[in-house]
Amino acid sequence: MTTKIPIEISARHIHLCREDLDKLFGSGYELKIKKDLSQEGEFASEETVTLIGPKNTIEKLRVVGPIREKTQVELSYSDCFFVGIDVPLRLSGDVAGSAGAKIAGPVGEIELKEGVIIAKRHLHLNPKEADELNLKNNDLVKIKVIGERGLVFENIVVRVKPNFKKSAHIDTDEANAAGLGKVCGKGELILE
Amino acid sequence: MTTKIPIEISARHIHLCREDLDKLFGSGYELKIKKDLSQEGEFASEETVTLIGPKNTIEKLRVVGPIREKTQVELSYSDCFFVGIDVPLRLSGDVAGSAGAKIAGPVGEIELKEGVIIAKRHLHLNPKEADELNLKNNDLVKIKVIGERGLVFENIVVRVKPNFKKSAHIDTDEANAAGLGKVCGKGELILE
Repeated sequence: MTTKIPIEISARHIHLCREDLDKLFGSGYELKIKKDLSQEGEFASEETVTLIGPKNTIEKLRVVGPIREKTQVELSYSDCFFVGIDVPLRLSGDVAGSAGAKIAGPVGEIELKEGVIIAKRHLHLNPKEADELNLKNNDLVKIKVIGERGLVFENIVVRVKPNFKKSAHIDTDEANAAGLGKVCGKGELILE
Repeated sequence: MTTKIPIEISARHIHLCREDLDKLFGSGYELKIKKDLSQEGEFASEETVTLIGPKNTIEKLRVVGPIREKTQVELSYSDCFFVGIDVPLRLSGDVAGSAGAKIAGPVGEIELKEGVIIAKRHLHLNPKEADELNLKNNDLVKIKVIGERGLVFENIVVRVKPNFKKSAHIDTDEANAAGLGKVCGKGELILE
């Protein structure tokens, strides 16, 4: 069985907890919405920070809101190589023992002990969509991208939550490897 | 049918013609071998150049020898985005109408009108290896990479030449998307 799935490309970004937002932007600071993202409530904010690595610095690292319980930075392998840090491949939220980094904002700096990850590719589904596809949380699926640089992504982790919307998320390295544009593309979900 | 194939990762590099080598490094300059590469006669040289883009500059772009008939720069999509130039996906050697760039060496600079490409993934085979796999030049094959970031690269172009050695070449974006290390990995060639 195959079905068409929208693929979205996550460029590098940072999620901040209340405490770190205060340190970087000032006490009680509120993020300003620049653009709503496809997953309900998530938005690219007007705010950016600087990630300072041992080899290079990434300017204008976009803050994605709303605030979360834990600060999390999502980079690509290309970013990590550029910055000069060794970062594990993790599911979003699984930050224990991940990489650290120094982050600077307009008001202050933080030294993250952990929270920097390369995000595992994943497929967002709400429970109704999951039922229709006969999938459950943590299942692994394949998505085939058609094109000159076509490929089949394996080991895509299914994430089911009530407020999710059907969409596969890959990072910029994965998008570049598949020849997908800067914003998004389409793939065929292959269920075996 | 499946068979194991070594996968090699091509980082960004430049091949120079005699004329451009002269302009960048001085008349009659000879490249110094730093490290032999897997394909017979090819080597990473001691020499590097600077690629100057509208957005950013890439320092230490490795020169790969020996000299060729035409100058050719091979970048990844990530590199092109960083540098700020729009570059087509091409087979090595197919540079007509490709992207241009400004290149600086220790002695002089050149303004390439064309020659900058993103290399299509390809599989090097000598005629004996091709016969054994029942493949011919320009065939398209698939290679599956096993692992947490496993995927199947489709549309890999078969290149057959007497001095070639069995090895698939992908770029750094493709390697990162597949979770392969900095140097090389293994894949399974899938013949259908």
